[in-house]
Amino acid sequence: MARDGLCCLMATNVVDTSKSSYAVLRPVPLESVEIRGGFWGRWVNQVVESAIKHQYKMLEESDRVNRFRYVAGKISEKPLRSLYVFDDSDLYKWLEACGYYFARKKDEELRRVVEGVIDDVVSAQEEDGYLFTEYHGSPERRWKNLTFDHELYCAGHFIQGAIALHRSLGGHKIFGAARRFADLIAKTFNPEGIRGVCGHPEIEMALVELYRETGEERYLETAEFFINERGREALRPAPDDKLNSALYRVLGGPEYFVDHRPVRELEEITGHAVRALYLNCGATDLYLEKGDKTLWDAMSRLWENFVRKKMYVTGAAGSRYVSEAFGEDYELPNERAYAETCAAIASFMWNWRMLLATGEARFADIMESTLYNSILSGVSLDGARYFYMNPLASGGGYSRSPWFPCACCPPNIARLLASLPAYFYSTSGRGLWIHLYGSSKASVSLNGVSVGLSQETDYPWSGEARILVEAEEPATFSLFLRIPGWCVNPLVKLDDRAFSPRPSTYLEIRRRWRGRTVIKTSFPLRVEMLTSHPYVRNNISQVALRRGPLVYCVESPDNRVDPRNIVLGRRPVFRVKYDEDLLHGVATISFAASEVNMAQFSNNLYKVLDGSMVKKRKVRVTAIPYYAWANRGDSVMITWIPFADYWRGGAAVRL
Amino acid sequence: MARDGLCCLMATNVVDTSKSSYAVLRPVPLESVEIRGGFWGRWVNQVVESAIKHQYKMLEESDRVNRFRYVAGKISEKPLRSLYVFDDSDLYKWLEACGYYFARKKDEELRRVVEGVIDDVVSAQEEDGYLFTEYHGSPERRWKNLTFDHELYCAGHFIQGAIALHRSLGGHKIFGAARRFADLIAKTFNPEGIRGVCGHPEIEMALVELYRETGEERYLETAEFFINERGREALRPAPDDKLNSALYRVLGGPEYFVDHRPVRELEEITGHAVRALYLNCGATDLYLEKGDKTLWDAMSRLWENFVRKKMYVTGAAGSRYVSEAFGEDYELPNERAYAETCAAIASFMWNWRMLLATGEARFADIMESTLYNSILSGVSLDGARYFYMNPLASGGGYSRSPWFPCACCPPNIARLLASLPAYFYSTSGRGLWIHLYGSSKASVSLNGVSVGLSQETDYPWSGEARILVEAEEPATFSLFLRIPGWCVNPLVKLDDRAFSPRPSTYLEIRRRWRGRTVIKTSFPLRVEMLTSHPYVRNNISQVALRRGPLVYCVESPDNRVDPRNIVLGRRPVFRVKYDEDLLHGVATISFAASEVNMAQFSNNLYKVLDGSMVKKRKVRVTAIPYYAWANRGDSVMITWIPFADYWRGGAAVRL
Repeated sequence: MARDGLCCLMATNVVDTSKSSYAVLRPVPLESVEIRGGFWGRWVNQVVESAIKHQYKMLEESDRVNRFRYVAGKISEKPLRSLYVFDDSDLYKWLEACGYYFARKKDEELRRVVEGVIDDVVSAQEEDGYLFTEYHGSPERRWKNLTFDHELYCAGHFIQGAIALHRSLGGHKIFGAARRFADLIAKTFNPEGIRGVCGHPEIEMALVELYRETGEERYLETAEFFINERGREALRPAPDDKLNSALYRVLGGPEYFVDHRPVRELEEITGHAVRALYLNCGATDLYLEKGDKTLWDAMSRLWENFVRKKMYVTGAAGSRYVSEAFGEDYELPNERAYAETCAAIASFMWNWRMLLATGEARFADIMESTLYNSILSGVSLDGARYFYMNPLASGGGYSRSPWFPCACCPPNIARLLASLPAYFYSTSGRGLWIHLYGSSKASVSLNGVSVGLSQETDYPWSGEARILVEAEEPATFSLFLRIPGWCVNPLVKLDDRAFSPRPSTYLEIRRRWRGRTVIKTSFPLRVEMLTSHPYVRNNISQVALRRGPLVYCVESPDNRVDPRNIVLGRRPVFRVKYDEDLLHGVATISFAASEVNMAQFSNNLYKVLDGSMVKKRKVRVTAIPYYAWANRGDSVMITWIPFADYWRGGAAVRL
Repeated sequence: MARDGLCCLMATNVVDTSKSSYAVLRPVPLESVEIRGGFWGRWVNQVVESAIKHQYKMLEESDRVNRFRYVAGKISEKPLRSLYVFDDSDLYKWLEACGYYFARKKDEELRRVVEGVIDDVVSAQEEDGYLFTEYHGSPERRWKNLTFDHELYCAGHFIQGAIALHRSLGGHKIFGAARRFADLIAKTFNPEGIRGVCGHPEIEMALVELYRETGEERYLETAEFFINERGREALRPAPDDKLNSALYRVLGGPEYFVDHRPVRELEEITGHAVRALYLNCGATDLYLEKGDKTLWDAMSRLWENFVRKKMYVTGAAGSRYVSEAFGEDYELPNERAYAETCAAIASFMWNWRMLLATGEARFADIMESTLYNSILSGVSLDGARYFYMNPLASGGGYSRSPWFPCACCPPNIARLLASLPAYFYSTSGRGLWIHLYGSSKASVSLNGVSVGLSQETDYPWSGEARILVEAEEPATFSLFLRIPGWCVNPLVKLDDRAFSPRPSTYLEIRRRWRGRTVIKTSFPLRVEMLTSHPYVRNNISQVALRRGPLVYCVESPDNRVDPRNIVLGRRPVFRVKYDEDLLHGVATISFAASEVNMAQFSNNLYKVLDGSMVKKRKVRVTAIPYYAWANRGDSVMITWIPFADYWRGGAAVRL
């Protein structure tokens, strides 16, 4: 691979807080982390590769590459299969995924393809740096409809993709192209230029990252400008623009765009979920660089509101269809959960930035839960079929697709999984941090000392991990071990020392490390029945099963009875069994349940309650991890299970 | 009042099936029914009057009358406070309400106002009959955007309003104006003219009614044309019309407009609820005239789907926000019920037409339930504040408004309540039909014999009614008494004869009637706990209380504990008490309940279920009729109540 001669040590950081003044944590580059076997090995190696290659085919078939070729004059026929103004962004996100992929794998064949695509992209750029295929050659149309046109959103993804490729391949020409566009944006949007923001946040975090990569203050300033300008309803179409006004209104007005109040004054997370969460990523990035306390306070408020009132038990975000938006507090429908894959990824990205700023485990808890449940559910086990929405229940007829007309989610999944190893570890002034558990090996430089770190674990099927720390030379530093929020009585052992840390903290083990040290963690896994706050009315009297970080669901292929017809009876007994042949290996939970006597209803919607609703004979029910559902054809699925003994809190027996 | 000399006997029929070949039932004109006292007296007299007068003020303040004055050249300043292209329709619906109102009450002052408004309307009509203030003087804009522009929708309401005024006042000039517009429409839309339909059905039923009033076949043919043309996706905007296409897509595409399949091939009720239900009114009207069996079969299928899969327990229709639409089968969220007042009225209107076609009580059951619950909930007890959405639960912050920017619901309520007496009785070849119970007096001509019919009853607070039939001269005919679907062991007595009819039928009492005959009905009222089909996941383990036709709710003003914190315990005992001072007189239901121990959640959204969810001490809870909620300021309300003994079907004790 062509490496820049001046910079022989590549460092593919996803969010490079190496020099961020207000970051507690520093990145461990993607190249330095190897994921081998265990739960994540298959996902970040085989699945990522298959997803990237499958998606390239889809990008070609849907004319998303041809858009660039056409405006670059490489093909003469206008591509018609790409429909949305923001379609450029799908290709950029895929390029970003490729950037991360190349950091961990030499793949000459894919590399040739990517170089060709990059050439198509760069050739489509206009003289002054502008790049948006929809408006190519029509400078008079530029920046005219910031509300709906996604020009800056696409620019953001272009910049992020270019940075990833630049970091992993070293000094790539696409990076220069991205800088030229960023320069044009900085020149265009500022207090003396256009005072506007993009209808879809994204450019903010891209510009902060570009600042991190280049040290050029103007990129940070432009990001700050966009954060500061937001919330003045500048996105509202002119009243005489009736159609845009109608669309604006139907989608939810300024709240949809998170443009109803200045960012620093927001009290509640509202609007289009991906817009809101991407905006928060950018705002938190800005905080990491500049330490603006009012911005941090706003982010904290939004986080509290999200996690305590608006987050699905799977970590998913966004309750409403059509506007793909957050709902009111406690508005969390299950079948009609929107729970867009991109929103789960956006929450993961935001929580990562909040974690980088604080080192507080509560953010890592949300990342883990979102990753294992709502993000993984967004992609099939083979990496080639996707969910846009991730409902928590389905009456059937909802399945994954190989692609979408609006294809934001598949490449988002690809770039997240391709970059996942970068989220396992961090460093800080005091030492080394472990955020995620999974068999892996990292090599980290800590104050000039090279430290090897490896994990062997069957997590999340087991709560035990064996962690090996190898200091090249004796050194004093802390090892910060994340203690998951879901566990009870966690135990950590180092030689003859035993720690009983609190859940949802980082256990700090500070010592002088010499040679090899083995640490053993034991996070007891139990099947828990979770209840949601009684104001989530649609979950009343129902429980969700959780074991470790995994939320479970009951899906029809594993059961003889329709999942909607089951009721957990008193003192349920849960049996856990690891089945290596099922769904690439999962631990199932099985239990006895009552079956609803559906004949009572004889096709009526309402009836007088006048006798037992359930049959006498019990049925055996099997639950699987939520992420693995919808991998076996059309199915019925529930996550929240009616529990007859709910109000008495009937404790479960766990085996 | 100016009466047409040629037609001295006014007959304000709402749906005039007097000559409809496929109608079982014939109308009893509005003038012939007097509602006195009882439950309905206040609603159809005082409330209607106050609503009509209040709404006139709102129509003026929102420039909805000024739109007409402006285009008629009566005022020079362009009115700016009216925002929607379809705003004309609100005035027309109000005029229709006035038409019904005048049939029952002489009100000179209002009459002068109405005549002035009619003059404004008629003066705004163009030479060729076209009337749509938005496009006044711009003939080139006519009929160009049938998808969104509501020209024919407004025309439909214009025609309906004109018919009502014509029928009650006799030969009014607005009727001629409406005919001129209808003639233009008939000339414009036909197989040789524009082959299109209106994005919002409404014109169909208006044209059938105009045919009924005039006997002119071309109106019926045009209505049939619109029914036949629908379902060919002609409303889909051209692909290069990006904004209209985006709006079309966001709203739900052809299904939103019920334009995805020809009417006769529809299997499922989908799309915008008011559009779908108005279309069904028009299609059923067409059936009533022409007897097209395939149309009837389609209506039957849609009715089955609606009633068995998509109707709220209050009769409300429409589960989804933004698109104001029907959802999937069993998709019936409570807080986020859209349940538009207009949709409930539309369902009432459709079921009335289905009843006219068959004389089957199942349609009257739906009318009654919708009327007492979801329609009445749409208006405050004083008639001057309205609901657009009628959710079945609220966490607070949702209240009625005196008006809306999109003000379809208030005048719809006004015209329904003003015309309500016309829905009490019908005639048929065999006799007299009683559909609704309520103290009232009607005078009906049956095969030339004048029959007096009166009811004295406290229905729905009591299930007893005393019905008096007075035949002017001895005559043989049947009295058809509706036996409500909600009752158990109904009893009807005539002298020493006792009938035990089946619920949800019409009891036919055929005899030779002489002089005065008294019939006593006894429909025992019990508090029932209703359950919904288990696939309505958000109602699982919850019950709705119903007594007679009334569905109850628990609202905060009547309770010390937040309604969301209550749980019905085993074998609840319900006490019913009529309180004449509460909410203009209602029967309340009170019971003991457990209270959720909210402290357990300490602001968390999810927790492990690990002990009793409820406090030991019981609380006393009072429920009120659903229709009466939100009349005492901001409140919290639930309709579906968690029931701890649900799965065992724990029977209630009723007192």
